[in-house]
Amino acid sequence: MSELRDHDSVVTAQLVAKALSGSRRAIAQVVSLVENGGGAAREVMCSLYPRTGRAQVIGITGSPGTGKSTLVSALAKAYRGRGFTVGVVAVDPTSPFSGGAILGDRIRMRDLSGDPGVFIRSMATRGALGGLAATTSDVVRVLDAVGYQVILIETVGVGQAEVDVVRVAHTVLVVEAPGLGDDIQTLKAGIMEIADVFVVNKADLPGTDAVVSALRAAISLGRGALTYSGHHQLEMPARSNPAASGASDDSWQVPVHEVAALDHVGIDALVETIGAHAAYLHRSGLWQQREKERIESDLTGRLKQLVIQCLMAQLKAGEWETILESIAARELDPQTAAARLMGRLTNA
Amino acid sequence: MSELRDHDSVVTAQLVAKALSGSRRAIAQVVSLVENGGGAAREVMCSLYPRTGRAQVIGITGSPGTGKSTLVSALAKAYRGRGFTVGVVAVDPTSPFSGGAILGDRIRMRDLSGDPGVFIRSMATRGALGGLAATTSDVVRVLDAVGYQVILIETVGVGQAEVDVVRVAHTVLVVEAPGLGDDIQTLKAGIMEIADVFVVNKADLPGTDAVVSALRAAISLGRGALTYSGHHQLEMPARSNPAASGASDDSWQVPVHEVAALDHVGIDALVETIGAHAAYLHRSGLWQQREKERIESDLTGRLKQLVIQCLMAQLKAGEWETILESIAARELDPQTAAARLMGRLTNA
Repeated sequence: MSELRDHDSVVTAQLVAKALSGSRRAIAQVVSLVENGGGAAREVMCSLYPRTGRAQVIGITGSPGTGKSTLVSALAKAYRGRGFTVGVVAVDPTSPFSGGAILGDRIRMRDLSGDPGVFIRSMATRGALGGLAATTSDVVRVLDAVGYQVILIETVGVGQAEVDVVRVAHTVLVVEAPGLGDDIQTLKAGIMEIADVFVVNKADLPGTDAVVSALRAAISLGRGALTYSGHHQLEMPARSNPAASGASDDSWQVPVHEVAALDHVGIDALVETIGAHAAYLHRSGLWQQREKERIESDLTGRLKQLVIQCLMAQLKAGEWETILESIAARELDPQTAAARLMGRLTNA
Repeated sequence: MSELRDHDSVVTAQLVAKALSGSRRAIAQVVSLVENGGGAAREVMCSLYPRTGRAQVIGITGSPGTGKSTLVSALAKAYRGRGFTVGVVAVDPTSPFSGGAILGDRIRMRDLSGDPGVFIRSMATRGALGGLAATTSDVVRVLDAVGYQVILIETVGVGQAEVDVVRVAHTVLVVEAPGLGDDIQTLKAGIMEIADVFVVNKADLPGTDAVVSALRAAISLGRGALTYSGHHQLEMPARSNPAASGASDDSWQVPVHEVAALDHVGIDALVETIGAHAAYLHRSGLWQQREKERIESDLTGRLKQLVIQCLMAQLKAGEWETILESIAARELDPQTAAARLMGRLTNA
């Protein structure tokens, strides 16, 4: 058993070495190891973690139908044109990168996937044992460690899980498009507060002006949330967004960009803005502050995962079932059951 | 301190007694206690838990713009008309019940909230410490225990957190509507597999036939996922949906209902179908099976919450910060940090 484990460790170490030397096949295998979790994942992340923290991570989120994937594609090409290597992590069941969209989309992605400077990975969005955000975070770290300089995370923009995923990013683009109904979809879904930049895609279609005006009105109404500076960062409990505390000369005004990603219109200006946002984060201290918040949420997620593993290892065969049946019979309430199990864990 | 705690316990017990005797004000206060968590929440849930398990819980989910809230309103009125008391739990930032929608919607809800047989509660969708699903589950249990017979949970239908919330329900309605773009929104978002019934709302609008056809096509394509029977339930790891294993005379064919909730058209037929689904769940054994799955996921969530609380209580002042800083400096990786903290917890 110990020999076998040593053998596995050697194989894992060799795989990591190959990934670091640039083998795409090895990188894909390392990403799979990390997604699958367990001992090999821990070894991989231990050895790669010191090499992380160099990539610029950009989150792209929005409702289905806004053309997020096309935008991701266009951004990837723009960064490639500027000489950067690009990783794409699609955490979106509707993404063509995940096989979830119509054929035309996937054909458009094909020229990207032929470029050795681009690495594309789609993530399973269900059943991630340690939570989707933690697994995404690890996959992003692998791509960061092996040298991808810009990492684009695509996620469908409604729901807490997706918000957690996109918080892995340094800069969050919230994508809207005309023609999806009367209202701003992301405004209704309550995810506007995570936007660093708004992108109105398909800006060649009718209705664009209305979407842009609505976004500007929302920004103007929600100035507290949508303008922020780094000066009061330590007072903020969740993601630093310290605008409410007043005016500052160096604050970030959330801009609205009109693009037509399919025709690559407006993409260069968007790339400039993303660069300006990264510079702002560094200058204001928010880069480090957000990194700390990410680390805290990641560590908390891992602890939650570990406790379940430890507990299951301690319980006798059938014991978990018996507890569930007692709760179902209303003989035991879930709070008391959880407290008792926790007591066993801490007094093992 | 001990006297104070005793006093608090007495106050909590009195509040619970008042809630059980039907005081709406007391019910609202008990729900708030439960939402806030802590010792009072545990006391409340301990005393109320044995009284739960009687309500029929119906989940209503769909993209923004499908008219979920209007449907919830119409269903509430329909159940009231049949003599049932109704609880509404809105876990949806876009819901007028949560104050998230336009004024017209909220005015439409007003006649509901004047009815003493209806109790409406909107939940904060952010920052729920123990997870949104666990808190929702507790709020549903409170309403169940104090005697609401039908409980409607409204949630925006994209994202794992929302899927987890809606799993609290016995019957899940997935709502679509014409005019929201080219595609079926929920199909794209990958939540079709949680549907027990599809509802096409706004069926008086053009485009309804296309949405209905698309849903029927999707049901027909995904027959494995969208038809199920209770005969092989024990083989299924996640939510029981044991269709893949073959034909059965007693299986549930996911129906598509056309309604115009604003005009109360098609609602009676939908209520009939929801009743038929509940009867099917009981007959097939799925009712109990799903209850067991809900209990398991609830207990797991509570354990995760407890471990963080226990750990924070054990750490010295500043210790958590120091660990976060070491990780940020890449001196320590998150896996190792989590394993060490877990070791401290279990060897306390």
